[in-house]
Amino acid sequence: MDLIERLLNKDKRAVARLITMAESHDPKVIEVIKKLYYKTGHAHVIGITGPPGTGKSTLTDKLVKALRKEGKSVGIILVDPTSPFTGGAILGDRIRMNDLSTDPGVFIRSMATRGHLGGLTKAVKTAVRILEIYEVDYIFIETVGVGQSEIDIVRNVDTTVMVLMPGSGDDIQALKAGVMEIGDIFVINKADREGAQRTKLEIEMMLDYGNLDWRPPVEKIVAIENKNIDKLLEIVKEHKNYLQQTRNLQKRRAQNLKHEVMDLIYQKVIDSIFDSSENEKKMNRLVEKVMTKDMDPYSATELALEEMDLKKIGHNK
Amino acid sequence: MDLIERLLNKDKRAVARLITMAESHDPKVIEVIKKLYYKTGHAHVIGITGPPGTGKSTLTDKLVKALRKEGKSVGIILVDPTSPFTGGAILGDRIRMNDLSTDPGVFIRSMATRGHLGGLTKAVKTAVRILEIYEVDYIFIETVGVGQSEIDIVRNVDTTVMVLMPGSGDDIQALKAGVMEIGDIFVINKADREGAQRTKLEIEMMLDYGNLDWRPPVEKIVAIENKNIDKLLEIVKEHKNYLQQTRNLQKRRAQNLKHEVMDLIYQKVIDSIFDSSENEKKMNRLVEKVMTKDMDPYSATELALEEMDLKKIGHNK
Repeated sequence: MDLIERLLNKDKRAVARLITMAESHDPKVIEVIKKLYYKTGHAHVIGITGPPGTGKSTLTDKLVKALRKEGKSVGIILVDPTSPFTGGAILGDRIRMNDLSTDPGVFIRSMATRGHLGGLTKAVKTAVRILEIYEVDYIFIETVGVGQSEIDIVRNVDTTVMVLMPGSGDDIQALKAGVMEIGDIFVINKADREGAQRTKLEIEMMLDYGNLDWRPPVEKIVAIENKNIDKLLEIVKEHKNYLQQTRNLQKRRAQNLKHEVMDLIYQKVIDSIFDSSENEKKMNRLVEKVMTKDMDPYSATELALEEMDLKKIGHNK
Repeated sequence: MDLIERLLNKDKRAVARLITMAESHDPKVIEVIKKLYYKTGHAHVIGITGPPGTGKSTLTDKLVKALRKEGKSVGIILVDPTSPFTGGAILGDRIRMNDLSTDPGVFIRSMATRGHLGGLTKAVKTAVRILEIYEVDYIFIETVGVGQSEIDIVRNVDTTVMVLMPGSGDDIQALKAGVMEIGDIFVINKADREGAQRTKLEIEMMLDYGNLDWRPPVEKIVAIENKNIDKLLEIVKEHKNYLQQTRNLQKRRAQNLKHEVMDLIYQKVIDSIFDSSENEKKMNRLVEKVMTKDMDPYSATELALEEMDLKKIGHNK
């Protein structure tokens, strides 16, 4: 296959092509990855996330430039917002990163929601594998906002950097509600603004309640002025070392892999149930009975499972 | 069962209790609904959705008060935002609706994301059924923002009111991208602000491209001043009549029911696959092989399907 050779020859356009194929869930990409899967797993994958307006793109830009100074190659995936109501404004911001795209050691790519969100998570995962095979040292995945799909995407990275800014008091309250645990490193960007230290203390107080091997550092930076970017990069590397030395990297990746395979099984099973016209007819008959109130939806489900011969699934020996 | 009797006796606290149980996916609620399912289907369910800040709560409040003047009983479900980063601010807004909660003809309830978003969609659906059995005439479901979960929730209602405000040009651009089709009625709230007419025309232009039985009306209102609320209510009733007369109500509900039963089948099948410790062991062995690069995740999935005897699913006669 031509694309395989081109990918092995580090042809950027082949990477772009494959990621486009991943976005439209073209099965040919999977064939490419299957053949070259042995090459994956060497890049360190960093998720950059947090509320809109905190300067994530600037921060990514500066971190990447710092890595480039060390001669490291980098892949960047910009995940477009899931809410159709915030789309326009945010993308404009990212134009600033365009100068990175002329750097031969950087591959940069925007990926958008097409259809269902679950599809994007899967496409991003595929894109990461393509970049790994392309042999970059670091992969950045930047998401905007923290909805369910962003959380799903970030769950698949090695190091998650949560970017906040001074005075995001409400945001921090919200973090308590469940996003907290996805941050490996907290950054207070725009830390030249008032309230940076208070925001730092608020976050640290929350972290005190956790009982973790890795206590997430909280770092104040001013990305646009390059202030403390080197320090942040050091912390990212510390986290990388921590993951490797404790074998948590292995554990985390194995866990993600398990979820992925479960998801894939899930899809195949569901597809094969509902691709059958026989089952389709059974479904329609049952739905009609529920519509006329001769049955409730829960009993209809039970009956469908019986009629479709699905009750014994999982109980094979 | 005590709760069944209390629900039939129109005990508000029983409704509250059952919805709390629905939120935590307590199977006892399902037993209650199974027994009383014959009572469902008579309420008209209205979804109120749109970007944050457009005044959805005020609009809901006024519409409900107009219906109360006609002696109609109403259930209101306020769905809490999915993004943990916008939670705090928005909920404050809703405190204004508290005076409705002392009205005996109104049942009002906030429901929040607990864990996975799919769970919320399911819990909201269950809550709607409880309110139907409780015999309200109208049910309002108000969501904040339009992420995937809001779209999923709104897909299950009879009439969707999309609330915008003047000058939400970006929002309207975004609507084109796919949210457009979920609006049965468009409202430009805060229409005393500049640009209301232009926003109205922009929306109507988009609607010209569609070829629909029901051409969604675009109504300018000022909810806080009660301006055009009665007119909006008339339009809601027109949509209700349209759905009933064309049998589109039946079709829409049958479609939703089918998706629900498919989802329920989906969950049961998946649960039974992964509840088996045998299958769990198989999974772990395969994941290990992928971790050591002896296999790729896609081939592992194929093998898992074979080993778990799932390949023939859907191909029963």
